[in-house]
Amino acid sequence: MLATAVAEARQGLAEGGIPIGAALFTTGGELLGSGHNRRVQDGDPSLHAETAAFRNAGRRRHYRDTIMVTTLSPCWYCSGLVRQFNIPKVIIGEATTFHGGHDWLAENGVTIEIADDQTCVKLMTDFISTNPTLWHEDIGE
Amino acid sequence: MLATAVAEARQGLAEGGIPIGAALFTTGGELLGSGHNRRVQDGDPSLHAETAAFRNAGRRRHYRDTIMVTTLSPCWYCSGLVRQFNIPKVIIGEATTFHGGHDWLAENGVTIEIADDQTCVKLMTDFISTNPTLWHEDIGE
Repeated sequence: MLATAVAEARQGLAEGGIPIGAALFTTGGELLGSGHNRRVQDGDPSLHAETAAFRNAGRRRHYRDTIMVTTLSPCWYCSGLVRQFNIPKVIIGEATTFHGGHDWLAENGVTIEIADDQTCVKLMTDFISTNPTLWHEDIGE
Repeated sequence: MLATAVAEARQGLAEGGIPIGAALFTTGGELLGSGHNRRVQDGDPSLHAETAAFRNAGRRRHYRDTIMVTTLSPCWYCSGLVRQFNIPKVIIGEATTFHGGHDWLAENGVTIEIADDQTCVKLMTDFISTNPTLWHEDIGE
């Protein structure tokens, strides 16, 4: 499932954007929607990777049977999305280059798995080193 | 400033949507962007009132000089937005029909003002009583 999120991150990078991707799956492994950060491409600060995947999955009555997969630790905005919609599990590519709200989610009953994937780490390390201002804009710092 | 958010909520209701509106202002009172919940209108679950206002304000380098105004207590998703982007103040029309994450925001240094506005209360009370399923979908319950 992480491969889908990584493919989204790479697509975002190819578009000149911030290389973070995400995908929402059912617990059975069916892809509901995927997406990537669209700040640069659409001039839209509201579409982080997780919110883009959530949007692309369309309207659902509930999310109790879903898993959010993301290449990077979810920020407070995206962690709030997971908590509000009771998404029970988050698979995270890496939490080394950015440490968001996943500890808070775990404290509130969300299952968190961190893959410590070196492809994800390299995507962000390379991006942050060449685009620090854009990265800081994306996380409000 | 709350009047701008209420006008957005009324517009959403007139469109057949969920009557929650929001607006992002500078601390000096300049409107940066406003919006309303677009779940019904666009089939988009990612656009709550606050995230719609944030999107419509466009890209900004930082939010330290802004105020988020919303007709209803912000859910965890929208509270996460406020925290991640360091929006220092939130003005809330009412927190009677829904109690979101504003206590958590206050604990984390965000200034919270609750207007206890009866127009806002009536908008949501009437809406929830006639559309309970849609309302519960919007907050993931």
